[in-house]
Amino acid sequence: MKNYPSKKDILEAHIRIKDLIHRTPVLTSDSINRITQTNLFFKCENFQKVGAFKMRGASNAVLSLPKEKLKNGVATHSSGNHAAALARAAKIAGTKAYIVMPHTAPRIKKEAVKGYGAEITFCEPTLKSREETLKIVVSKTGAEFVHPFNNYYIIAGQATAAKEVFEKIKVNLDYLITPVGGGGLLSGSLLSAHYFSPSTKVIGAEPCGADDAFRSLRDGFIHPSIEPKTIADGLLTSLGEKSFAVITKYCEEIITVKEETIIAAMKMIWERMKIIVEPSSTVVLAAVMENQNKFEGKNIALILSGGNVDLEKLPW
Amino acid sequence: MKNYPSKKDILEAHIRIKDLIHRTPVLTSDSINRITQTNLFFKCENFQKVGAFKMRGASNAVLSLPKEKLKNGVATHSSGNHAAALARAAKIAGTKAYIVMPHTAPRIKKEAVKGYGAEITFCEPTLKSREETLKIVVSKTGAEFVHPFNNYYIIAGQATAAKEVFEKIKVNLDYLITPVGGGGLLSGSLLSAHYFSPSTKVIGAEPCGADDAFRSLRDGFIHPSIEPKTIADGLLTSLGEKSFAVITKYCEEIITVKEETIIAAMKMIWERMKIIVEPSSTVVLAAVMENQNKFEGKNIALILSGGNVDLEKLPW
Repeated sequence: MKNYPSKKDILEAHIRIKDLIHRTPVLTSDSINRITQTNLFFKCENFQKVGAFKMRGASNAVLSLPKEKLKNGVATHSSGNHAAALARAAKIAGTKAYIVMPHTAPRIKKEAVKGYGAEITFCEPTLKSREETLKIVVSKTGAEFVHPFNNYYIIAGQATAAKEVFEKIKVNLDYLITPVGGGGLLSGSLLSAHYFSPSTKVIGAEPCGADDAFRSLRDGFIHPSIEPKTIADGLLTSLGEKSFAVITKYCEEIITVKEETIIAAMKMIWERMKIIVEPSSTVVLAAVMENQNKFEGKNIALILSGGNVDLEKLPW
Repeated sequence: MKNYPSKKDILEAHIRIKDLIHRTPVLTSDSINRITQTNLFFKCENFQKVGAFKMRGASNAVLSLPKEKLKNGVATHSSGNHAAALARAAKIAGTKAYIVMPHTAPRIKKEAVKGYGAEITFCEPTLKSREETLKIVVSKTGAEFVHPFNNYYIIAGQATAAKEVFEKIKVNLDYLITPVGGGGLLSGSLLSAHYFSPSTKVIGAEPCGADDAFRSLRDGFIHPSIEPKTIADGLLTSLGEKSFAVITKYCEEIITVKEETIIAAMKMIWERMKIIVEPSSTVVLAAVMENQNKFEGKNIALILSGGNVDLEKLPW
């Protein structure tokens, strides 16, 4: 893929990955609708294989690689969910996965990656350390690097989550809100809305303590994410050029949310919906909670990106 | 109803309550199947209205009462889920609910009852204190007592959960396992299996620390539950005569499980299935985990009875 994914690329990705992913449910909650005075549709990627939407992109990227590029395995750096997804996709494709992970990643994410038979190399929780460590791993193994978001096949795969929302929800959706870390899910969702539901505005949500995407969209160039501070451990990275180009073209707004609202939203989802979502997921509900005037009375889809939480380290 | 519910009673109950309840999903988990070497079907009553199967029985009991008995309201004693269910059913039926609750009940359960506009009177966490306090409340208000389980309308309502399982699951179910506290869910499930899936054996599961149902079935009379000690706060009560009569007639086995297995099962469901269930629910998976020889290779439905947990007081 030379340019960002076309409608055809996303349709093909969805067919390509269909046996590797769940078509996850879209849930509603009367009580959260009542509290927020909105009409919310929660796309439950926490129920996705490996517990996160990342399975979509990783599956599409691995299944799109030519055989000769697969033979030495695939490699990546990731705080966790992409790592587990790539490990699982590689296993199904019959090849090896080499994963560079910050040693600070949640236990559950480390265990998942090991469980799929991948080889882990730990690094410091900085982009520099990740990239340097990965370079060493790739030069040793000859594995093919599959970037967690700056890759059009990844973006086309992530786009299928929003596509499923548009196929499932019959009311006119005013908004679709996704978390934004590296921008793979947000850019994919923007493209899916553009192709499949052009009247739906797609908004990104991220923590105030990791607001690089907000500043990047505002200023027109990629701000690196320097020393981000947030409980949302999936949203620490900077945007990539490929995801940023799509975001610049199609995204009107990125909303930043406070840490306490992320935690309150997480608790609300756990208590009211009885489902487990990770903090990186709950920025989308936090965005609704902090902007009631904007969203009151609207039909809004929220992508709950994942459900991998260390149960011993809950924020309450 | 003079005798235990007939097939017709259960069919009518299901129609009567259909607008007050969710038809909850039945979920599966590849990884838990792999770990337990079984084929499990989880009936998710944690997603039920008020977060527990109790909504079924309470709805049926309230909607079956003649108008003149409803006018002074309904009353009950309950550690929580039946209380919330009766409060919600009363509210929908346009009458008042008076609830006697042990002061030790989980915060989330107290708040739910208040949220439905019921009047709470707190008591000590003993059957004696519950019954005495209730007597005072009923004599003051003239409200109609709706017992949490020793009531045929309640049993017919709870029976609808298993009925939905049999309607949904197309493979032949070898077993259906339910938690047993007062025996409403177990006796209802036994009747549903008898009428709708006679080849399925229904088993009760309860904590070793509250094994009164196990001893009652073994000895042929109701052992009172004296100073039960378990994290499963929904399973503290003794059986009632009505539920015990059904259990004696149709139940072959009650399995007791250790506290550490209840907690391990709870964690496994939270981590692997990304859903929130209360400890009283997880005795059913604990029963499978402690009896692998018995259950290996079998098709087993497990009723996850509820999802109301104090998130600040988790057992890990």
